[in-house]
Amino acid sequence: MKIATAPLRSTNGSSRDLLIGLDIGGTKIEALAVDQNFITLGRFNHLTDTSSPENFIASVTDAIYQVLNQAHAMPSQIIGIGIGIPGQVNEKTGEVRLAANLNLTTYPLGETISAIFNVPTSIENDVRLAAIGIYHWQKMNKPVESIAYLSIGTGVAAGVIINGRLLRGSHGMAGEIGHITVDPNGVLCNCGARGCLEAIVSGPAIVQQAINAIQFNIPLNEVHAGHVYRAAADRNPSAQVIVQRVSDNISRAIQWLIMTYDVDRVVLGGGVSGAGTAFLTPILSALANYRAQSDLFAAMLQESKIVLLPTGYNAGTWGAVYLTNEGDRQLIKG
Amino acid sequence: MKIATAPLRSTNGSSRDLLIGLDIGGTKIEALAVDQNFITLGRFNHLTDTSSPENFIASVTDAIYQVLNQAHAMPSQIIGIGIGIPGQVNEKTGEVRLAANLNLTTYPLGETISAIFNVPTSIENDVRLAAIGIYHWQKMNKPVESIAYLSIGTGVAAGVIINGRLLRGSHGMAGEIGHITVDPNGVLCNCGARGCLEAIVSGPAIVQQAINAIQFNIPLNEVHAGHVYRAAADRNPSAQVIVQRVSDNISRAIQWLIMTYDVDRVVLGGGVSGAGTAFLTPILSALANYRAQSDLFAAMLQESKIVLLPTGYNAGTWGAVYLTNEGDRQLIKG
Repeated sequence: MKIATAPLRSTNGSSRDLLIGLDIGGTKIEALAVDQNFITLGRFNHLTDTSSPENFIASVTDAIYQVLNQAHAMPSQIIGIGIGIPGQVNEKTGEVRLAANLNLTTYPLGETISAIFNVPTSIENDVRLAAIGIYHWQKMNKPVESIAYLSIGTGVAAGVIINGRLLRGSHGMAGEIGHITVDPNGVLCNCGARGCLEAIVSGPAIVQQAINAIQFNIPLNEVHAGHVYRAAADRNPSAQVIVQRVSDNISRAIQWLIMTYDVDRVVLGGGVSGAGTAFLTPILSALANYRAQSDLFAAMLQESKIVLLPTGYNAGTWGAVYLTNEGDRQLIKG
Repeated sequence: MKIATAPLRSTNGSSRDLLIGLDIGGTKIEALAVDQNFITLGRFNHLTDTSSPENFIASVTDAIYQVLNQAHAMPSQIIGIGIGIPGQVNEKTGEVRLAANLNLTTYPLGETISAIFNVPTSIENDVRLAAIGIYHWQKMNKPVESIAYLSIGTGVAAGVIINGRLLRGSHGMAGEIGHITVDPNGVLCNCGARGCLEAIVSGPAIVQQAINAIQFNIPLNEVHAGHVYRAAADRNPSAQVIVQRVSDNISRAIQWLIMTYDVDRVVLGGGVSGAGTAFLTPILSALANYRAQSDLFAAMLQESKIVLLPTGYNAGTWGAVYLTNEGDRQLIKG
């Protein structure tokens, strides 16, 4: 939905006018400052303070001041701020909803930041924002018009770009595939339903399956999905079973994404994907099995469509700075 | 993809300029003639001749002449032809591919019809075309911007309209959800893969499940899905099991469509949906079960989003005439 907005404000016509991108997670805030040619001028990250809305806003504004410092720039040089958050966003008002990891039920984040810095501020869900960043990253290599970004971390969701545009859906819920039922008789998900994709392949779900089945030499609260992938690589049979189950279900999700959206690429990211080759290899094997089954899958599920997001690329902050530049997404005026 | 095309040609400025829409199926061809205000001037249908490409084209052109007759109009009054076919379509060339039900591997259908009638001719896959027709039909009642049309007949596929535009995907395959895996250990599908949605809920799949389990009083080759729904209504336990399985899997497909595309409506059609209330009621019950499980499903899977396509509305031919009117889809010039 397009709403009337002011053009980007330039205070002094300087080539050092800044775009700020923030990727706000439950644990940390990452900030990126670029100029209008998208040249990086500064980067900064610190912990998110979720103890109260006031402290949360203080940690957000502080991240902005810190990245300005890095860029040797003044607040008045900012011409747009883009923000990604783990929750729902009202695209028209910039209001954040149901961001449990930020300890916010509803909060006028866009309006607040826009008022503090007196610039247009755009907010988007973090996975969709990362999809925007990844789309631009993919474009640099080999232009594709449609991609799905499948994020597998604490939560599981997809961000989808169709013909170069973000697919939001009628209620900003397009791509919320973490709660698709993959096994109607499966384990209970946090959402209350049974057999959701997220209840099998998310980081916490992998750990939950593992701590019941594998002996770890570290405190249980330090176990993460990467340890399970490592145990599978070390031929622990229980870990191998878990990794196989997770990979089979991720490959099913990839199949769904390709058959429903017919995208050129499925880019895999999120914390669980940090296991790298150990994460990717069994998924590619499962897709090879699909291709062997049918001509349709052979044509549609080619390995070349699957890309692992490099850990060095911060898709979220890049998506955030690109968001400031999308004419119809400068939602909150300063 | 938009290609340069001539504007609609008007031969005499008469208000009787005609748009022709054809819905070509493996069994019959339905034709609709409307004026530029989309007022119906003629309707016609007859059997499709699939014995050879030449006979096929003869039955297509004959349907056009017959509907012109109904409309008391001349071929020179046609200003655009839209055609839906059960197969893949190259949107740029109008070439038909892999239309097994029409006995065509590849065929330049758009070019051929365009040359015969000397008018722009647009071709689209039949399910996607029906989605266009349904979108316009829904708009007449209560405007919605995004719909998915789930067709459950001999095949199973979805046509998707996002923000008023048809979603084709990078290879014209968006919405081909009939071959999504719903049960990795399930029955073999015609496509070669195991446990595809189509292998459980299509008309032939329902009949296959039934003839192994139910005693029918008619020749087996006359049994169709409607008989199975009737047997379930008559409390045949085997038929009830089949209908339950089919309905559960259709409700899963609806869940997927809503969670992936976040559409306002899922419209159900195709031959199997002809069972009407007996078809719809168990699907709505399954969706109610989802809603009871989680707040997310309660918010997303409302009954008001689900619509059964009335059997009297020929979505395919209406989609075909609307296709002629979509500026960027007049692909083949006369």
